[in-house]
Amino acid sequence: MSNKKQATVKPELVGGVRDYLPQTMITRQKMLDKIRSVYENFGFVPLETPAVERLDVLTGDEPQFKMNLFRSVIARGTESTESAAKRQSKGSEMALRFDLTVPLSRIIAAYPDDIPKIFKRYQVGRVWRGEKPQAGRYREFVQFDADIIGSRSMLADTEIIQIMYSVMKALKIENFLIRVNNRKILNGLIEYLGVKKQERADEIMRILDKKEKIGDQEMAQELSREPKNEYDVAAPNLDDQQIKSVIDFVNIEKGTLKTLDQAEEIIGQTKIGQEGIKELKEVIENLKILEISQDSWVIDLSIARGLGYYTGPVFETTLTDLPEMGSVYSGGRFDGLSNRFIPGSNIPGVGTSVGVDRLFAGLEKLDKIKGRPSISQVLVAMFDPKLKEDYLKIVDKIRQAGISAELYLEPDPFKTQLIYAAKQEIPLVVILGPDEKEGGQISIRDMEAHQQTTINRKNLVKKIKEILKNKR
Amino acid sequence: MSNKKQATVKPELVGGVRDYLPQTMITRQKMLDKIRSVYENFGFVPLETPAVERLDVLTGDEPQFKMNLFRSVIARGTESTESAAKRQSKGSEMALRFDLTVPLSRIIAAYPDDIPKIFKRYQVGRVWRGEKPQAGRYREFVQFDADIIGSRSMLADTEIIQIMYSVMKALKIENFLIRVNNRKILNGLIEYLGVKKQERADEIMRILDKKEKIGDQEMAQELSREPKNEYDVAAPNLDDQQIKSVIDFVNIEKGTLKTLDQAEEIIGQTKIGQEGIKELKEVIENLKILEISQDSWVIDLSIARGLGYYTGPVFETTLTDLPEMGSVYSGGRFDGLSNRFIPGSNIPGVGTSVGVDRLFAGLEKLDKIKGRPSISQVLVAMFDPKLKEDYLKIVDKIRQAGISAELYLEPDPFKTQLIYAAKQEIPLVVILGPDEKEGGQISIRDMEAHQQTTINRKNLVKKIKEILKNKR
Repeated sequence: MSNKKQATVKPELVGGVRDYLPQTMITRQKMLDKIRSVYENFGFVPLETPAVERLDVLTGDEPQFKMNLFRSVIARGTESTESAAKRQSKGSEMALRFDLTVPLSRIIAAYPDDIPKIFKRYQVGRVWRGEKPQAGRYREFVQFDADIIGSRSMLADTEIIQIMYSVMKALKIENFLIRVNNRKILNGLIEYLGVKKQERADEIMRILDKKEKIGDQEMAQELSREPKNEYDVAAPNLDDQQIKSVIDFVNIEKGTLKTLDQAEEIIGQTKIGQEGIKELKEVIENLKILEISQDSWVIDLSIARGLGYYTGPVFETTLTDLPEMGSVYSGGRFDGLSNRFIPGSNIPGVGTSVGVDRLFAGLEKLDKIKGRPSISQVLVAMFDPKLKEDYLKIVDKIRQAGISAELYLEPDPFKTQLIYAAKQEIPLVVILGPDEKEGGQISIRDMEAHQQTTINRKNLVKKIKEILKNKR
Repeated sequence: MSNKKQATVKPELVGGVRDYLPQTMITRQKMLDKIRSVYENFGFVPLETPAVERLDVLTGDEPQFKMNLFRSVIARGTESTESAAKRQSKGSEMALRFDLTVPLSRIIAAYPDDIPKIFKRYQVGRVWRGEKPQAGRYREFVQFDADIIGSRSMLADTEIIQIMYSVMKALKIENFLIRVNNRKILNGLIEYLGVKKQERADEIMRILDKKEKIGDQEMAQELSREPKNEYDVAAPNLDDQQIKSVIDFVNIEKGTLKTLDQAEEIIGQTKIGQEGIKELKEVIENLKILEISQDSWVIDLSIARGLGYYTGPVFETTLTDLPEMGSVYSGGRFDGLSNRFIPGSNIPGVGTSVGVDRLFAGLEKLDKIKGRPSISQVLVAMFDPKLKEDYLKIVDKIRQAGISAELYLEPDPFKTQLIYAAKQEIPLVVILGPDEKEGGQISIRDMEAHQQTTINRKNLVKKIKEILKNKR
């Protein structure tokens, strides 16, 4: 490919996706490492599934599936995407996964012999949603999930909350609140309202989920919406009395047992509501046994969670200094998610997912994150290119001692090399000139302290370790 | 969603992609961790770029771009992929990246102020290719790249080879061979043959790249192919004498300086060939300074590398016990790859990429990998559900000590719990019954040794650490 043949392409991204430059990525990776170590501490094992899945696997072949997805087709060379899409049959339609929970439900159904009865797995990976690009809404983002499959015990739900708590603590985040509710309680509320049609119930749940964003007044308005025509079976169509009940209910003061007692007064007559309350009482009991600080979690009857597949307890975590950001760590119980593959199997599951990008953006906003451009602790300067042999051996020796180090590769002026070290925030520069070499010596420049010491070359690694130790 | 409404979906994958179950993934992740730690030891910094890129960024807007890609369109809910493709304009076409090098070249062009003059970055991530699914060929796979941007020095190429060597050693692989050649040497050969047309040269390079797969005879045949018609400008159309020269050249005995001397006899008259030989001589000198074992690398004049963007030294690594597997770790110099964004900038670059999945498959084949189903060191049995409070506290205490532990969550018979621990290969089971609780005691069962010891409950964590220490 000669240059003149090439048209100039703009180095641009598609909408709604991002680059993570090293300055950010070094810190971000530390965050991912910490989350992983908490998950592993709880005995969760890693899983990886493809980014591209069959469309019917992702949607459960539900005609009501409304989420916008990234569909994929294989196009030959310069073939147009449209003609590739035409070529590929409907039965082989593919899309990029929109979460990691649906793939997990596929795994459970596909490998019954390889998956233990109680299966605790974590998975970190990108997911894609065809959202309209807007501030803070991304089309490609990373989730870090932990799920427990195979247990109906509230001990599993408790463990998931404990994990969320432990991750936030491991990330040194102090001001957060894990808000807990139960879909069964909200289903009890819907039964109490006398709503029977599933579509109406789903729509009411969807409106409840927006409470924080739209406020009580708009919520009331949406709940009162009458059917547009006879096919509009999802219109909530609640009357004033019903709406008042809903608003009163979701505004019951957040707390622990008292909150549940108040809920019980309203929906205690419904079997499903009663069940939901009993479950959360058990969770509360467990959290108290574990002495998980009462400042970090609360029962909040307004939490609904958007995704349709939740069936029991649901969780959301907000950074209390950034409530407008919404939940950074959410989850819930999703019994029966594998039913789309094995009807009636009703395999239980409960889990949670860190919105890695959102949490990271939140911590950046709160100035809790300090970027770093480099990992290197030492730069070996190319002081005199004739001494290349020495430099290669020196940098090798430092690396062998487990210290991240780089050799300046170009014969640039020494000053340029120091500017590079300063800009990259590399703490130490090792310098060897012909005179030092002659005398069996070598110099170390401490970039922060603006100090340079000359030592016996034999002691180089020892001295580097000593200086770095004092820097931590 | 009620069950009866749901059609049954098959829990199947699209062709050419894979799941990694924990049994495999635990080991695979250790491999990724080790690669990362070598890259960081060399001072490389992490970068992340989106999976979805603009089509023109990926193809360089080259009409000759021939690779099959995963194109992407955003489809609304149940909309057909074809109609979504029709809706989206040609200018906004997107595809999944096919490697991590082209995105790197975009980064260099897009963030000139944030990228240091010499930029050493690593990146791990999935890439996608629309290959015909066949054994060992995957459409989605993971690459783990390390590249140095901004240096024309052969020290950079040496460092890349050294990194490949260090990674293989860190993975405890003994039998491997890094094969090194230079595109400039092959360009010298093409000049020596008198071939001038770029398309013919590219085609010859492509045929050379297949040498190992197709053998000398088929290679000769392909090199002799005459143009099918006047538009077939890429037909190699070499005569018998030329073909003999090619075959003799690529079969020059692998070695170090002697190999280069023999090459020089043939192509030494071409300026580009001379340059290529000089570069590799420098690399050899550096590798000798670093005392990198002569068993682990060699100059091999038959290495061409498939991708079109290489401009200098190229590298391939084979597992010597599995030569048929091909290269598991390849790379090369790609000066000017950012030219598609900044014409004439000619920014130098050199790097390498682990074919993570292929390497892993190779190690599995060689029985070098032992799967493990679990990360947990300890299972706390749910011996008597009435003692739940104790179990919650015990498992919490073990975890706080930094030991991966899980609590058996269901009230299953104790025998079922032991079978679970055995199947999951969890080394220790902690057992507390009412009698033990009464006496302030607790039992630890060593699953491998089939031994059970009862100790003072206060000493639990200490005793667990002691047993685990002896197991390593």
